[in-house]
Amino acid sequence: MAQVKLVNYDEASSEARAVFDDIMQTRSTDYINNIWRALASNPPVLKRFWTQMKEVMVKPSRLDPLTKELIYLAVSVTNNCDYCINSHTFAARKHGLDDEMLTEFNEIVALANAGNRLTMRLQVELDERFKPGHVAEPWSAKGKSAAGQKPKSSRKG
Amino acid sequence: MAQVKLVNYDEASSEARAVFDDIMQTRSTDYINNIWRALASNPPVLKRFWTQMKEVMVKPSRLDPLTKELIYLAVSVTNNCDYCINSHTFAARKHGLDDEMLTEFNEIVALANAGNRLTMRLQVELDERFKPGHVAEPWSAKGKSAAGQKPKSSRKG
Amino acid sequence: MAQVKLVNYDEASSEARAVFDDIMQTRSTDYINNIWRALASNPPVLKRFWTQMKEVMVKPSRLDPLTKELIYLAVSVTNNCDYCINSHTFAARKHGLDDEMLTEFNEIVALANAGNRLTMRLQVELDERFKPGHVAEPWSAKGKSAAGQKPKSSRKG
Amino acid sequence: MAQVKLVNYDEASSEARAVFDDIMQTRSTDYINNIWRALASNPPVLKRFWTQMKEVMVKPSRLDPLTKELIYLAVSVTNNCDYCINSHTFAARKHGLDDEMLTEFNEIVALANAGNRLTMRLQVELDERFKPGHVAEPWSAKGKSAAGQKPKSSRKG
Amino acid sequence: MAQVKLVNYDEASSEARAVFDDIMQTRSTDYINNIWRALASNPPVLKRFWTQMKEVMVKPSRLDPLTKELIYLAVSVTNNCDYCINSHTFAARKHGLDDEMLTEFNEIVALANAGNRLTMRLQVELDERFKPGHVAEPWSAKGKSAAGQKPKSSRKG
Amino acid sequence: MAQVKLVNYDEASSEARAVFDDIMQTRSTDYINNIWRALASNPPVLKRFWTQMKEVMVKPSRLDPLTKELIYLAVSVTNNCDYCINSHTFAARKHGLDDEMLTEFNEIVALANAGNRLTMRLQVELDERFKPGHVAEPWSAKGKSAAGQKPKSSRKG
Repeated sequence: MAQVKLVNYDEASSEARAVFDDIMQTRSTDYINNIWRALASNPPVLKRFWTQMKEVMVKPSRLDPLTKELIYLAVSVTNNCDYCINSHTFAARKHGLDDEMLTEFNEIVALANAGNRLTMRLQVELDERFKPGHVAEPWSAKGKSAAGQKPKSSRKG
Repeated sequence: MAQVKLVNYDEASSEARAVFDDIMQTRSTDYINNIWRALASNPPVLKRFWTQMKEVMVKPSRLDPLTKELIYLAVSVTNNCDYCINSHTFAARKHGLDDEMLTEFNEIVALANAGNRLTMRLQVELDERFKPGHVAEPWSAKGKSAAGQKPKSSRKG
Repeated sequence: MAQVKLVNYDEASSEARAVFDDIMQTRSTDYINNIWRALASNPPVLKRFWTQMKEVMVKPSRLDPLTKELIYLAVSVTNNCDYCINSHTFAARKHGLDDEMLTEFNEIVALANAGNRLTMRLQVELDERFKPGHVAEPWSAKGKSAAGQKPKSSRKG
Repeated sequence: MAQVKLVNYDEASSEARAVFDDIMQTRSTDYINNIWRALASNPPVLKRFWTQMKEVMVKPSRLDPLTKELIYLAVSVTNNCDYCINSHTFAARKHGLDDEMLTEFNEIVALANAGNRLTMRLQVELDERFKPGHVAEPWSAKGKSAAGQKPKSSRKG
Repeated sequence: MAQVKLVNYDEASSEARAVFDDIMQTRSTDYINNIWRALASNPPVLKRFWTQMKEVMVKPSRLDPLTKELIYLAVSVTNNCDYCINSHTFAARKHGLDDEMLTEFNEIVALANAGNRLTMRLQVELDERFKPGHVAEPWSAKGKSAAGQKPKSSRKG
Repeated sequence: MAQVKLVNYDEASSEARAVFDDIMQTRSTDYINNIWRALASNPPVLKRFWTQMKEVMVKPSRLDPLTKELIYLAVSVTNNCDYCINSHTFAARKHGLDDEMLTEFNEIVALANAGNRLTMRLQVELDERFKPGHVAEPWSAKGKSAAGQKPKSSRKG
């Protein structure tokens, strides 16, 4: 049983409703998942989490939508979050995941968890070629002008 | 060795510098931790994570600053993030943590990890009195007007 | 369903009853949580765990009671122990936690879990200033007298 | 430092060499990662793990190679296996991962770890629509013939 | 509720039935656990996992059967897999585990989880005597003949 | 680098020395591991942890010493505590663990981590026969006499 009330539309504050509306519009649905309803008792929190989700998971990106869902799902399985496993499998299916792909996914997650532990246990040292080779220079505020004004020339870092 | 370059002030883009400036001003310091420098190669990400950190950890809140650091630290120890354990212990000390309190903290984290496993293992069912007692009503979009317009009367939920 | 029987007062051994009595007295209650009843089938274990809990969580300390509960709770959420999450939220409320503080707590735990993974992933090296600077000297039993007798002069270390 | 010797080609048994050869051929490389060299002291184990890796990660499948690496990587970050994080990032880059995609990946893993904890903490009950709807029928060995002989008609299940 | 159908004998493909038969024969039982039935929708996966389980857990080995179950169980408790905790406790009892031993087991798992966190938190450096002392030599394919032919003399490594 | 000084014998308080002496006597050694030296800055904590370790790991029990070490080690690998993995492997070797048994152990831990995730992911419901069948009766303080006096007749529960 949830620790908080699952807020319904007619009970929600206008700030929460604005988020519900955005979710429904973004996802082309008239259904709001329980997790959003659970967060809705605190509209600023609801808004912050939805904004992140939209930014990271929905906005067009280099990684395709299904891949992004599978990454989120892999974390959720490893952390054993029941709700997340179910809701994100549902979302992944909407993006094209079928049973065959799901089985492949399951095997990778299982193998990775096994491989991780084998490797940790053997305390394998890292191959030279895997080290990115960045030399860590000490911090320097050189270039920062007094009172926060930016210097004239600034290169993109 | 970090997977990315630790960006220095004079190499940073103006967006990243804006964040560096804000960190230095907020924390009354002229030093930028390696984690922020590591994130600085991607200024939008740096900005998002710092904004969250400021909002959740720095903004005046009901929980006092030291308590908030100890919560963050408890998670970091449980997840075994070396960098986070060290940097947040440093931050906690700035908020008043001394060796005696640190020892108390360590004992709680150790006991909690033991207690969690004992409890999981015994599969103890939840006492009635711990259940919050919220009845989960099904979702209803009742109250949502056509085309996203909000109804005239709206109560805070 | 629990793996073990939840022992009731009239079924408990006198050693277990002594612990039940101590819990009820310490917490000013006549109710015993399921976890203690589950442990009661093995009175020495019950006694050991309660003794630790009392020592670490109840005894007056530098950290205040609510902070201690929140540390325990942060670990329990990260480990996803349902029973512990519920019972320790209940305990935290007894020490003054209200919904506003609870929301702040939730956001810190969520942010910390995200921050931990970002940091681990980037393999950020530890800043010099975060290193405690203790030089690890090799073990030496110097000062230990034969047959376990302690030397006359002993300084507190 | 590894718990075991990193076996070199000229020290390896013929069974281990057969695996080394297969790795080099499969990956079009003349380099063997430290993890395989660490496992090589026990050729049957080395063989078993490589066979699984090949089957699950290399064999043509519905999921594309980069997606599979990112799933493996998401698990490795969540479990904080340093070696695995580094070696599988290296592998992902070989399959086309660049810095922009890597940043997107990092943000998903961070967000998922936060989202998992928020959800666990709120103990959100699962929406009906996320339940797969399979009715669990009790086990029945009906159809199994005596002495292990299979019945004549068998449908694919 | 399972994400997949629990396959019954008469619905299973002949490949899945072959595995069911092997399980029943190996374990001298006519009952198939739900986990195998859940995997049976994908016979190659079912076969692979059962083959590993048989190889690692059932085949006569230096470690005795009960010890092997307790190792598996310790991992399952730490990962909080409800199904695994229950099914492997059941299996351990079949190999002689009784309540007294179970209590000892519980205490070790609890203590280890506490000890792990105390140690991580204190960032204790590793004692020299615990380092296995293997010098990691760089990879060399010396000894590998052209076109994959093995050299005449090969020593077991 | 440790967060705390590694205390040497001649710097330790008499309470800490008493624990050092007990460790050396119990383990028939003149060497104190770094973890105990790290804890020695706070003698009550050192004493509590050593007392638990002795009680749970050293005291003669139904489970044999090697099995107990392997349980502790399985937890430590799953939690990825480097120090613990190394020190408890060392201890296990003292109790008879050799390379062959170690390999078997590694395979079980890897398989269990994979099996756990496969099972969690499939959300397999628990077989009836694995449920212990205890009916959870509500708490009742019946039998508790006023002012904490125990009733005359008490049965062992």
